[in-house]
Amino acid sequence: MKQLKERILSDGKCLDGGILKVDNFINHQMDPVLMREMAKELVRRFSGHTINKVMTVEASGIAPAIMVGDYLNVPVLFAKKKTPSTMDNMLVTEVFSFTKNKTYTVCVSGDYLRPGDRILFVDDFLANGNAALGIIDLVEQAGATLEGMGFLIEKGFQTGGELLRGKGIHVESLAIIDSLDNCTVTFR
Amino acid sequence: MKQLKERILSDGKCLDGGILKVDNFINHQMDPVLMREMAKELVRRFSGHTINKVMTVEASGIAPAIMVGDYLNVPVLFAKKKTPSTMDNMLVTEVFSFTKNKTYTVCVSGDYLRPGDRILFVDDFLANGNAALGIIDLVEQAGATLEGMGFLIEKGFQTGGELLRGKGIHVESLAIIDSLDNCTVTFR
Repeated sequence: MKQLKERILSDGKCLDGGILKVDNFINHQMDPVLMREMAKELVRRFSGHTINKVMTVEASGIAPAIMVGDYLNVPVLFAKKKTPSTMDNMLVTEVFSFTKNKTYTVCVSGDYLRPGDRILFVDDFLANGNAALGIIDLVEQAGATLEGMGFLIEKGFQTGGELLRGKGIHVESLAIIDSLDNCTVTFR
Repeated sequence: MKQLKERILSDGKCLDGGILKVDNFINHQMDPVLMREMAKELVRRFSGHTINKVMTVEASGIAPAIMVGDYLNVPVLFAKKKTPSTMDNMLVTEVFSFTKNKTYTVCVSGDYLRPGDRILFVDDFLANGNAALGIIDLVEQAGATLEGMGFLIEKGFQTGGELLRGKGIHVESLAIIDSLDNCTVTFR
């Protein structure tokens, strides 16, 4: 998506260790106009699917997900990274974060992720795909169907994209970055 | 706001201890259509103010905030509850949570909350107002101006609303609940 790629080049910051900071417009300060355009583009790319629910993980996935849900006119469910004391019928999975080098819990209520649901998962970043694997596990636990996974930015030099596409999942990323070497952004 | 009050009555769940669960449509599963209507109503109520940035706290505040920002066509900044290792120019405050009986850190980057900014804060719940006080502290640290604070649901039987209005802040809540006694919702 041209608009996003241009924004990454103008406002993204590249740090050592393959880190791309987009906290100017995606995951700390957010540009709602760009966010809406990105949501619209994700909806277009998944237009061949029947989707009755959008799913994401807190926190940075919520903004694109709510806008995708608004375009599709379906509920949006965000998985939580802590296990709330008041959640009924809880489905739980574990996710290993390479960035933070630790395992965390992700949960949703089976009251809202249900058998027969046709899920579009939306998140800001795809890197190693571990969070995505956790979501796949939750969707399977619930007996729901995963229709697709849409990401704003994919780090193509990490393994998540290959892993998910290898499972036959319809994956769409609005910008795929093949390299951040020498702090230069190279798009696929 | 009539539409929200009706939804609270139809889909909210009341638990012992003054807890209102709205995880069916606000803070776990979200209804994007209602969310957009609530954002529109908040924008209407703050139409007398000049606002150049919307602010919220992760995670449940993000959905209403991004939609308010979309209507106002201004950036949306979400404060983080953990201190990221890669945040530049960090402003930090501490918030005591009665619900969880512990103190947590809330931070934003001073690169995005800046002197001269005119901030509308948006969140899902106003209860004791401690998170709101943390935001006021961050806004003051940055030398920005707080134009107002908009909430979806206010627990009128807790002290936050009185505290914030007593400071002369323009506070708007789309539904104010005066009592959850006997698990019956009584609106103001």
